[in-house]
Amino acid sequence: MNAEIIAVGSELLLGQIVNTNARFLSQQLAGLGINVYFHTVVGDNADRLMSAIEIAKNRAKLIIFTGGLGPTKDDLTKETIARHVGKELVMDQTALESIELYFKRTNRVMTENNRKQALVLKGSHILPNDHGMAPGMVVESGSHIYMLLPGPPKEMEPMFLQYGCQALASKNNSNEKIVSRVLRFFGIGEAALETEIIDLIDAQSNPTIAPLAGDGEVTLRLTAKHVDEHIALSMLDEMEMKINQRVGQFLYGYDNSSLLGELAKTLKERKHTITAAESLTGGLFQQELTSIAGVSSVFKGGVVCYSNEVKQQVLQVKPETLEKHGAVSEQCAKELAENAARLMNSDIGISFTGVAGPDELEGKPVGTVFVGIAIKGRATVVEKMILAGTREANRNRAVKFGCYFILKNLKESQNAK
Amino acid sequence: MNAEIIAVGSELLLGQIVNTNARFLSQQLAGLGINVYFHTVVGDNADRLMSAIEIAKNRAKLIIFTGGLGPTKDDLTKETIARHVGKELVMDQTALESIELYFKRTNRVMTENNRKQALVLKGSHILPNDHGMAPGMVVESGSHIYMLLPGPPKEMEPMFLQYGCQALASKNNSNEKIVSRVLRFFGIGEAALETEIIDLIDAQSNPTIAPLAGDGEVTLRLTAKHVDEHIALSMLDEMEMKINQRVGQFLYGYDNSSLLGELAKTLKERKHTITAAESLTGGLFQQELTSIAGVSSVFKGGVVCYSNEVKQQVLQVKPETLEKHGAVSEQCAKELAENAARLMNSDIGISFTGVAGPDELEGKPVGTVFVGIAIKGRATVVEKMILAGTREANRNRAVKFGCYFILKNLKESQNAK
Repeated sequence: MNAEIIAVGSELLLGQIVNTNARFLSQQLAGLGINVYFHTVVGDNADRLMSAIEIAKNRAKLIIFTGGLGPTKDDLTKETIARHVGKELVMDQTALESIELYFKRTNRVMTENNRKQALVLKGSHILPNDHGMAPGMVVESGSHIYMLLPGPPKEMEPMFLQYGCQALASKNNSNEKIVSRVLRFFGIGEAALETEIIDLIDAQSNPTIAPLAGDGEVTLRLTAKHVDEHIALSMLDEMEMKINQRVGQFLYGYDNSSLLGELAKTLKERKHTITAAESLTGGLFQQELTSIAGVSSVFKGGVVCYSNEVKQQVLQVKPETLEKHGAVSEQCAKELAENAARLMNSDIGISFTGVAGPDELEGKPVGTVFVGIAIKGRATVVEKMILAGTREANRNRAVKFGCYFILKNLKESQNAK
Repeated sequence: MNAEIIAVGSELLLGQIVNTNARFLSQQLAGLGINVYFHTVVGDNADRLMSAIEIAKNRAKLIIFTGGLGPTKDDLTKETIARHVGKELVMDQTALESIELYFKRTNRVMTENNRKQALVLKGSHILPNDHGMAPGMVVESGSHIYMLLPGPPKEMEPMFLQYGCQALASKNNSNEKIVSRVLRFFGIGEAALETEIIDLIDAQSNPTIAPLAGDGEVTLRLTAKHVDEHIALSMLDEMEMKINQRVGQFLYGYDNSSLLGELAKTLKERKHTITAAESLTGGLFQQELTSIAGVSSVFKGGVVCYSNEVKQQVLQVKPETLEKHGAVSEQCAKELAENAARLMNSDIGISFTGVAGPDELEGKPVGTVFVGIAIKGRATVVEKMILAGTREANRNRAVKFGCYFILKNLKESQNAK
C-alpha cells in the first residue's frame, strides 16, 4: 500500500510553522510497512485542495490529511473531501456530546460554529479525539482510503497512535514489515564512505542503503522488508556486518545516538570523571555534556579560558608557552588539558584551543584547532585539525572531534589490556 | 509570481528529518511578495521527481528545489531537471576549484564523485556555496524559473539569503514592495501582550501584526505593503510607535537580534567585562556569548561549577552556605557571582544555580532557579524564578532571564546617573 500525506493550512505555506505532522506520520507508516511517496502542503483554499486530492488519488491508495477540521470558515478539509467522494456530512452525536462536555469541563461557552466540528463524513469510521474537539475519520471510496486527522500535533499524534494505526493495519493487505536502522559514522566524509561501499550500494535492493551527510557526520540508513520481522532484522544485521568490514572503524553509534551521548555512556560505564578547558569552544563541550541528564557522576565542572590571562592565572599555562608557541598551539593544548584535570581533580581533561574565525589569530589561519586529551596514567595526546566551516560550524565540529578522540583513545586503551 | 517548493530526499518521506527548508523558504518568499501555494516532498527517485516537476510546472511559475545536489548516486535533482528542461550539465570551473580548495584546506583526499558536485545546468546563474561544496543555480526555461538549492539547512539558508534572494527579487514583476520588521519582547507573555494591543490587532490591515511566541520570547511581525518602499517603512515606524506606547518597556530588539547579542553590544559600548559561574546551565551562557564573534574584549573566561566540590574549591563558596542553604539558594548564587568576578578579574559576574530536572534537588522542585548578578561597585542582586519547562527549556530560559536582568540592571544604573 502506498500513501500520500496532505497537510492543509496556509500557516504552513507562510512558514509560520513546520510540518512536523508529515514527519511523525511518515515514521509511523514506515513501521506499518506502508510506503510514503509524496508529502503535499496546500493552503486553506477549496479549489487548490481539491486539485491536490485529485493528484494524490492518481498516485496513492491511502491519502492522509492533517488540519482543516477546526470550527472556523477557513477549515474546509472534510467539506472538500465530501464533495470529492460524493458523500454528505452528518452530525455525529457522540462527537457532539464530547464537544459539549469539553466546554462544560473548561467552563467556557460553546459557540455555534463549534457544532461544525461534530459533522462527519457519512459512513466513515470515527477516530475519537481525546485531546481536543474535532474527531478524525477514515472513509473508503472505490479502492481509496482517506484518513482525516486534526492539525495540532498534540491532538493528531495520540489520535493516530491510539486509533488511526489500528484502522490502517486492518486495511493494509501487505504483510510485509519494514525495519530500518541508521548507522552513524564520524571521521570519514560522505564521498569517501560511499567509495568504500560503492559495490554494496550499486547492488542494493533489499535492504536498501541510503547515505546522508550533515553536521560533520555521515549516516547510512539500512531498510529491509520481509513478512517476518525477525528475518528483516537479520537482513539488516548481515548488511551491517558487510559495511563494518570496510568502514567499521568510523562507526560510533546507531539511530538517534550522538557522539556526546556515547561519550557520557562510556564514561559512566568506566566510572571515569572528565573536565574541560575550553578556549575556542567557549563552553560548548560542557554545555552539551550537561544537557544530558545524570552526568553529574562523571562531570564536576570545568573552565572557559577565553583569554590568555585566564589560561595563565586560572589554568597555570606557562608564560613561556604563550610567548613562544602562542595560545593556539600543541604545547598550550597539552598544558590546558593536563592542568584542568588536576584543578578539577578529574580522570580525563580535554582542551580546545584554536581559531574559530572570522579573523586569523597569532598568524594562524581560521579553522586551526588543537584538541588536547589528558587521560590519567597515559601520555597526553594533542590532535591538530584544519576545519573549513563558519565560526559556528568549526566550534561544533571541534567538539565532535573531541568526543571522537576521547572515545578512540579509551577504546585503544581497552584493546591494549 | 507564484511558487512551489519541492524538497527532494527519501529521508524526509521516512520521517528521519523534518522539512525545515520549506518553512525557511516560505518565510523568505513571503517577504519578497511571492505567494507559495504548494510544498511537495518527493524521494530520491527520478521518475517520481520528474512527475512532481511536471505537476509543479502547471501550477507555479517559480519552482524551488532543495536537496539532491550531493556527490552520491541517489542525488539526482539536477540530472532530472536537466532532462526536463532539455539542457545539458557542464563542469563549472569556479565550483570545481572551490571544491578542490575545500579538500586542500581540510587536508582530505578528494574522490572522483566529488567532481559531480561541480556539474551545473548549462546557461544557469550560479549561486556560490560558502558553507559546503554543491553550488546552487537558477535556470529559466520558457516562462518558468527553476532554483536549485542544497539540502543541508546550514548551506541552503546562507546561500538563499546571500545570493538566492537577489536573483529572485530581480525577476519578480510586482511593483509592490513588502517590508517587514520583527519586534522582540521579553518578560511579558503572549496573551498579556495581545491583551495590551488587542484593538490594534483587531483593526489591522496594512501593516499587518502577527504575534508569535517561542523560547520564552514573544515577537510581533509587522508587515507593510506599498509601491514606495519609504512609505511602507514609515507605515511600520508609525505602528511600532503605537505598540511601544503600550508595551515598550518589554521591547529588547529587532529582527534577528537576541538577548545575548544585545548584552554583548551593551558591554562593548560601556567597556564592561563579564564572567560567569554556571551550575544549572553547564556553560550555556558562556557558549552563547562566545558564539558572537569579537567578544574577547568583554569576556575573559568563566567557570562551569557543576559539582559542590568545584563550587567550594574553585569558586570559594563557603562550606556553611552549602550546608545551611544548599547549592540551589540565594546565598550560593550571590557568592558564586561575586567570587567568579573576583577570580576572573571582571566588572560583572553572573551565576546560574538551580534544578534543571528531571529530578528535584536538595528538596527543591524542578524549575527552581537563582541568578546572581554582581556588578562592580553595586550591591549584588539575586533573582529567583520558578520555570515550568523541560530540562533543555529551563536552561535556555534561565540564560535569557540572566541577560535580561543584567540589561535591566545596567539600564537602571544609567538612568540613575
